[in-house]
Amino acid sequence: MDDIKGIRTLVLSESDPMRLREQVRHYFHQTYTIDEKLYESLADDAAFYLRADPLRHPLVFYLGHTAVFYINKLIIGRVLSQRLNPSFESMFAVGVDEMSWDDLNEANYNWPPIPEVRRYRDLVRARVDALISELPLDETGITWASPWWAIVMGIEHQRIHLETSSVLIRQLPLSRVRQLEFWKLCEDRGEAPQNELLPVKGGTVRLGRDDSDPLYGWDNEYGSASYEVEGFKASRHLVSNLEFHEFIQDGGYQKQEYWTQEGWAWKTFQQAELPRFWIRDAEGSLRLRCMASEIPLPWNWPVEVNYLEAMAFCNWKAARTGRPIRLPSEEEWYRLRDLHLDSDQPWWTKAPGNINLEHFCSSCPVDRFAFGEFYDIIGNVWQWTETPIHPFPGFKIHPIYDDFSVPTFDGRHNLIKGGSWISTGNEALRNSRYAFRRHFYQHAGFRYVESAAELTIHDEPYESDPALLPWCDANWGESPLGRPNFALTLLEALQPWLPSGKGRKALHLGCKTGRSTFELARHFDQVIGLDFTARLIRIATAMKEKGFIRYLRNDEGELQSHIEQRLQDFGLQETADRVEFWQADVSNLVEKFSGYDFILAENAVEGAINPLRFLEQIHTRLVPGGILAIADGYDFKDETTLPEHRVGGFRKDGEPYTCLEGLQDILGNHFELLAEPQELLQTLRQGGRRYELKKLQLTLWKKKT
Amino acid sequence: MDDIKGIRTLVLSESDPMRLREQVRHYFHQTYTIDEKLYESLADDAAFYLRADPLRHPLVFYLGHTAVFYINKLIIGRVLSQRLNPSFESMFAVGVDEMSWDDLNEANYNWPPIPEVRRYRDLVRARVDALISELPLDETGITWASPWWAIVMGIEHQRIHLETSSVLIRQLPLSRVRQLEFWKLCEDRGEAPQNELLPVKGGTVRLGRDDSDPLYGWDNEYGSASYEVEGFKASRHLVSNLEFHEFIQDGGYQKQEYWTQEGWAWKTFQQAELPRFWIRDAEGSLRLRCMASEIPLPWNWPVEVNYLEAMAFCNWKAARTGRPIRLPSEEEWYRLRDLHLDSDQPWWTKAPGNINLEHFCSSCPVDRFAFGEFYDIIGNVWQWTETPIHPFPGFKIHPIYDDFSVPTFDGRHNLIKGGSWISTGNEALRNSRYAFRRHFYQHAGFRYVESAAELTIHDEPYESDPALLPWCDANWGESPLGRPNFALTLLEALQPWLPSGKGRKALHLGCKTGRSTFELARHFDQVIGLDFTARLIRIATAMKEKGFIRYLRNDEGELQSHIEQRLQDFGLQETADRVEFWQADVSNLVEKFSGYDFILAENAVEGAINPLRFLEQIHTRLVPGGILAIADGYDFKDETTLPEHRVGGFRKDGEPYTCLEGLQDILGNHFELLAEPQELLQTLRQGGRRYELKKLQLTLWKKKT
Repeated sequence: MDDIKGIRTLVLSESDPMRLREQVRHYFHQTYTIDEKLYESLADDAAFYLRADPLRHPLVFYLGHTAVFYINKLIIGRVLSQRLNPSFESMFAVGVDEMSWDDLNEANYNWPPIPEVRRYRDLVRARVDALISELPLDETGITWASPWWAIVMGIEHQRIHLETSSVLIRQLPLSRVRQLEFWKLCEDRGEAPQNELLPVKGGTVRLGRDDSDPLYGWDNEYGSASYEVEGFKASRHLVSNLEFHEFIQDGGYQKQEYWTQEGWAWKTFQQAELPRFWIRDAEGSLRLRCMASEIPLPWNWPVEVNYLEAMAFCNWKAARTGRPIRLPSEEEWYRLRDLHLDSDQPWWTKAPGNINLEHFCSSCPVDRFAFGEFYDIIGNVWQWTETPIHPFPGFKIHPIYDDFSVPTFDGRHNLIKGGSWISTGNEALRNSRYAFRRHFYQHAGFRYVESAAELTIHDEPYESDPALLPWCDANWGESPLGRPNFALTLLEALQPWLPSGKGRKALHLGCKTGRSTFELARHFDQVIGLDFTARLIRIATAMKEKGFIRYLRNDEGELQSHIEQRLQDFGLQETADRVEFWQADVSNLVEKFSGYDFILAENAVEGAINPLRFLEQIHTRLVPGGILAIADGYDFKDETTLPEHRVGGFRKDGEPYTCLEGLQDILGNHFELLAEPQELLQTLRQGGRRYELKKLQLTLWKKKT
Repeated sequence: MDDIKGIRTLVLSESDPMRLREQVRHYFHQTYTIDEKLYESLADDAAFYLRADPLRHPLVFYLGHTAVFYINKLIIGRVLSQRLNPSFESMFAVGVDEMSWDDLNEANYNWPPIPEVRRYRDLVRARVDALISELPLDETGITWASPWWAIVMGIEHQRIHLETSSVLIRQLPLSRVRQLEFWKLCEDRGEAPQNELLPVKGGTVRLGRDDSDPLYGWDNEYGSASYEVEGFKASRHLVSNLEFHEFIQDGGYQKQEYWTQEGWAWKTFQQAELPRFWIRDAEGSLRLRCMASEIPLPWNWPVEVNYLEAMAFCNWKAARTGRPIRLPSEEEWYRLRDLHLDSDQPWWTKAPGNINLEHFCSSCPVDRFAFGEFYDIIGNVWQWTETPIHPFPGFKIHPIYDDFSVPTFDGRHNLIKGGSWISTGNEALRNSRYAFRRHFYQHAGFRYVESAAELTIHDEPYESDPALLPWCDANWGESPLGRPNFALTLLEALQPWLPSGKGRKALHLGCKTGRSTFELARHFDQVIGLDFTARLIRIATAMKEKGFIRYLRNDEGELQSHIEQRLQDFGLQETADRVEFWQADVSNLVEKFSGYDFILAENAVEGAINPLRFLEQIHTRLVPGGILAIADGYDFKDETTLPEHRVGGFRKDGEPYTCLEGLQDILGNHFELLAEPQELLQTLRQGGRRYELKKLQLTLWKKKT
């Protein structure tokens, strides 16, 4: 049976379809088998219904869930069209994994008997096995868009739950579990080594995967990022139970000053005094709860804590030593790994650390697996980092599992790195990225670092402000309703009037998220985009500086898509140096915005606080002969523009007075009107099936010389 | 000089262009001249600046206004492109005619000197005269759309102000006016005759003009209406000063019970004790203020009062006699005229009454001009009616004077009929229709009638509710943005699925203002349109019953157009008998709406309080094999539909769940889905330059047999 341990994740680029098909089949069955092997640790079927953790489902759910997941993803991926058991495939669909620590789940579930769930698991196993035989496969192997991806996703999903279920079993009463020989603990327990900080050279780390990567990855692993990491010091060992015990003995759990606000709130609510798996027995001795056993606390094993406890320890250590001690960032962890390990799970001959079920079924001493001067660069227990998980530039959501990553991009889920003794499959890879709420327990501990470098938080969150989304979409989204993007329509209409020659400057008023500003910069040496709404300017500036933006797109009802748009995909990357964005009130423009050859006012009249003053003064900002282009819907809002500041759309001297007449009256002294006004349609997505359509009038005005 | 009195309005169908040109020139100059003759009644130029009526401009305004009006209308009509004096043409553009009696105009105007205004008048006179020489004219004469219409409109406008300025002069202090021989009063003053009620036979009256009418008319005179008038009794004479004096002596001005609420409020505010032009002198004798003289009150002249006083008199008379005494309706006035007069001003040899300046420059005795048994059917003073002015079916706004009539269609402007001694031009015609606020003074009095017939108010006002206008426009408006009307798009998509054969019944849910209901009725023997919004049903029902609806269309800013849509213009008049409209909640349909061959649900799912229940039950309303068509944007609103009643657009079992999936799950038991869903675009006008565009999904379902 031991051959089900130490299995490696699939190399999906395998070009022999027959071979790859059999590799998938083997990986699938081994995964299924070891998953079931895990549940053998439960004393009886009744234990499946116990809620090991009040915040999560009982284990019966996970028994069904890992099977149901295959079917649900195969259906969403349109590989299967028929359900096996609609009731199970609904009941076992959604976990309760991401709740707050004080938000108890009170829902009542009517879980079915275990034999029924097992029968269902067998059905799924047979169905997937049949698919593995039937699905076409060619020499390109298995890629992200292939129907096979759903099967591999199911396998890797099951491997994640292998680990998380092992944590849940670890939380069941000892009387309801049994220690199997298969899940045998490490027997090496003893004195802890003295920890010390060792220097780590700075350098560049490259994170992310591209589509050609031959290994399965979750969507958050794709895209690419490159960071310069300053030199720092890192502890030689993971923090051992002994080292952490000093913190406890020093009253660490009682002193609020070491804790973050979130940490102290959690500690108080939980009345935590010790790490979760430590037990103080009747005689006062400390013991450790392992998955299915309790043993005297091994001082030289790594401590297992959540992020909040790890941070409190670092703060205590920093206070005691007067040094900038903290947890490593994601980049620092990678730097450390890249300097000390150059292989990865599919290609190593034997795991270099306590990982992938290749050595023990528990932690082991923190001085057992050396990587140069350091220990446990990977394996043993996961290592908490300071970095909340975030998407890399180039991130795309996988369509058949669109809520795997995105709900965790909230700044409240910190990355854990390096894997534990039971991390297998994708979990054991360099590029894997898992993140949990900071109060969560896994088989996780930490290494501390010393660094004065400021931590960079790489959050470019998805813009979700309903007031901004229509402009993100209108500027950068796919063409709505088969219409061309408005910025392109506008630029095409402006084309005949754009000046040529070197050194030309343009001003774009009402720039929103900047699309027309960038487009104008194809024709000018400098374009300034101005908007009254700073939140829009922030998005335009992100596009200039980072080269990408992210926002939500409303689909149907509450359903939303996560969109990332990259400047380079519009062929605009070379314009980024020529544009600048500023918050400004067009009714009250500061002096420095002057001397332009061309001014485009896009929805800027209707958006102005005082359009009259704006238009009366705008000629002062153009060079003689300069062009003013106004594209506007004259859709004045009471909350923005007082009636007396509007340019038209009312009766004057008893007669209807249009905004075009108003523009002519206001601009006539300084400009001549070029050409006939044109009408352009601008589309703003307000929902998946609802748009606002604005008919903008485009007028072109030449400043008199 | 006397040849400028008694001039007749133009017969515009004159087919000799040379002749017509000279007739226009003659009419124009005579009008200009008599207008100036009127102002000679002012003692000096300073009198032009006195505010005769606190609610209206001083006479200097009207001196300028009647000239400015020609230029402004010629410019709007694009006959002229150059202004003569932009400042005058703004300052003299808008009168202050329609204010409430307690809303004093406090604006400060910087009126120019009278000689300047007179010079401007001369300039205009010369310019218009030149135009009369220059403008092309052919044998079709002058029609509504001709550039000449602006000139004739200017002349008729000046003739209206001839009368209204004569009323303002009548309100100036006696010391500031002079009695000219030209404006000589009637000298016949004496005993008043005893009034009595005489029977008037009922019959049909036909009101309105069509485009072929050879006389100038204001826009409110066009269209056509036909009414059956029941027999009634009418007073032989207009109410004389003596007859009204009985009311006063009986304490009429002190007894609230005779007054309408509006009347009593006016009386109280004005502290009115006598008709406006009556004066009680130091000796207690009653005197009458005429235009430029004061004379002992002639008891046999008609009393001049506003509507509110006339109504109080009628109520007093009714109370005293126990009879249903009231003012006549517009139709009753026409009935009386048609029975007693068959000529009209352009064709009579001598005015049959004291009208058109053909007899006196004041009122005359109420028994001077007989029309059969009655007197003063036309002329002497205007006669107040019970009827608020309203547009006839077929009414169109004249584009160069779009606010002549529409602001008076508010139910607060009552028609006056018959003309006064100074009513000339269009004012003296059978078809002319003038209306004033009920507290206003003109040279107006009244005749009373006795009738138990209920008064019909012919108000089909312009729908102005912003929540309803988009649906009026979407159903009946011109094709937006070059797209076909949505009802036509929808019906075309439904065409292959409409059952054929006799006796078929359809149900239209979410019928709004009914367009698709009527369109469906081309294919069915009966179509019921249901909507939750009763105000929409009211509009649909008006279209069925009256054959037309009216609504405002938002143009730019505050500018709106007045739209009338007629069923016959859509070729739908023959369907009117086959449609019915009811208010109903689709989530809770009453039993009687059953047994249909076809059900169209148009925006009905998204608009339902409980779409789930609606869809679960809808199969019970169809015959076996019947078709259900759903065109919907699934755009559920929180204020209407609770989340738990929605059909999709959320995550279910962790996966995105679209509304189409929801429909399939809900309807699947009873229906089979026909064909692929189609996407149709529905456009809702929200403003002149702003639309809401909805992408509706059309699905077709056949009820299982």
